[in-house]
Amino acid sequence: MEKKKNISMAVIKRLPKYHRYLQELMRNDVDRISSKELGEKIGFTASQIRQDLNCFGDFGQQGYGYNVRDLYKQISVILGLNKEYKTLIVGAGNIGQAVANYSRFSELGLSLKGIFDANPKLIGLRMRGIEIQDIDYLESFLRNNSIDIGMICVPRINAQKVCDTLIQGGVKGIWNFAPVDLVVPEDVIVENVHLSESLLTLIYLLHKDDREDEKKIED
Amino acid sequence: MEKKKNISMAVIKRLPKYHRYLQELMRNDVDRISSKELGEKIGFTASQIRQDLNCFGDFGQQGYGYNVRDLYKQISVILGLNKEYKTLIVGAGNIGQAVANYSRFSELGLSLKGIFDANPKLIGLRMRGIEIQDIDYLESFLRNNSIDIGMICVPRINAQKVCDTLIQGGVKGIWNFAPVDLVVPEDVIVENVHLSESLLTLIYLLHKDDREDEKKIED
Repeated sequence: MEKKKNISMAVIKRLPKYHRYLQELMRNDVDRISSKELGEKIGFTASQIRQDLNCFGDFGQQGYGYNVRDLYKQISVILGLNKEYKTLIVGAGNIGQAVANYSRFSELGLSLKGIFDANPKLIGLRMRGIEIQDIDYLESFLRNNSIDIGMICVPRINAQKVCDTLIQGGVKGIWNFAPVDLVVPEDVIVENVHLSESLLTLIYLLHKDDREDEKKIED
Repeated sequence: MEKKKNISMAVIKRLPKYHRYLQELMRNDVDRISSKELGEKIGFTASQIRQDLNCFGDFGQQGYGYNVRDLYKQISVILGLNKEYKTLIVGAGNIGQAVANYSRFSELGLSLKGIFDANPKLIGLRMRGIEIQDIDYLESFLRNNSIDIGMICVPRINAQKVCDTLIQGGVKGIWNFAPVDLVVPEDVIVENVHLSESLLTLIYLLHKDDREDEKKIED
């Protein structure tokens, strides 16, 4: 496993896709697959697939292809899915609720330890069996519980403050849904889900096509 | 505006970020900003910013910088936010609810025309004042209403079927939350929000750091 030291971000970003496709193959009782077939499914070339998977060790076998279950397990370990990660959610609005009820939570080794909100109407209610706590208790909760991942589902304006509290409380991973670029120390990892940016890209590309159609009609 | 023909995907992906930062500056009553200051805020170099914005026309003024409000308006037009887009949501579960209640919906010119689900417990309920309809009516709804963007918030297994129905019904833009790569004709635009892939990337990077710490302790 010594090979896995200098893996490019591009390869890392492709790993979840491999994981997803292999899971799909397992669901369909496929035992083995060639890099060519896997490539056709995912939309990568066979040589790209061989190159990517070679970063992590020798999985394939000439003339046989990949053993789907073995490869899936190996990629799960590489992704870190064999460990448990303690998480909490800050913000119990629509996004927070969707995140809390996210079906793959436990499958990915995530264990939800707390949910926090500032809204008195939400405090005391339960989501996935966990009572929503007053955000004022976040700091002391973090002192008493070792949390790996904090999920920020609060409005833009409060996101950096929540992020600072999480980091002071020892959280090293942030899954951020607020439309801001959080400022964090180097040893903290932030992964953003910026819904607006995704939607704006879609609108731009749609409207660009409109423009080209209008242009064609004019021509 | 003739310059905007051959804009790279990289620039397009940065536009929503410009849009967001300029909105923030307007909220803070900033009237003008130099490319250097804007660069420091966003984390791009000044020359990158000048280069990006030059793709769309001459916005800046030597020694003055950018007029924040003008630039914001221009980028809004470039992004296509001056038009109305008719949308519908398929899947009224947690994600569908979060999408329906998404606060920037109308700000981005989106007008929600319908919500569909297959679950009899949800059909007839209201979200944002819109009654959830039986998914069996999706096809006829699309025949009678011109919809620009379909938002797919159904489970993985149903996503492609829903996507096919939307496209047959004339939808040209898909905002997809299901963890699948949808197969669509060339003239249809798909923008994915793959929550699992984002979370898996976060877990990988977190666990990679753990591994390096363990390695250091061993050394």
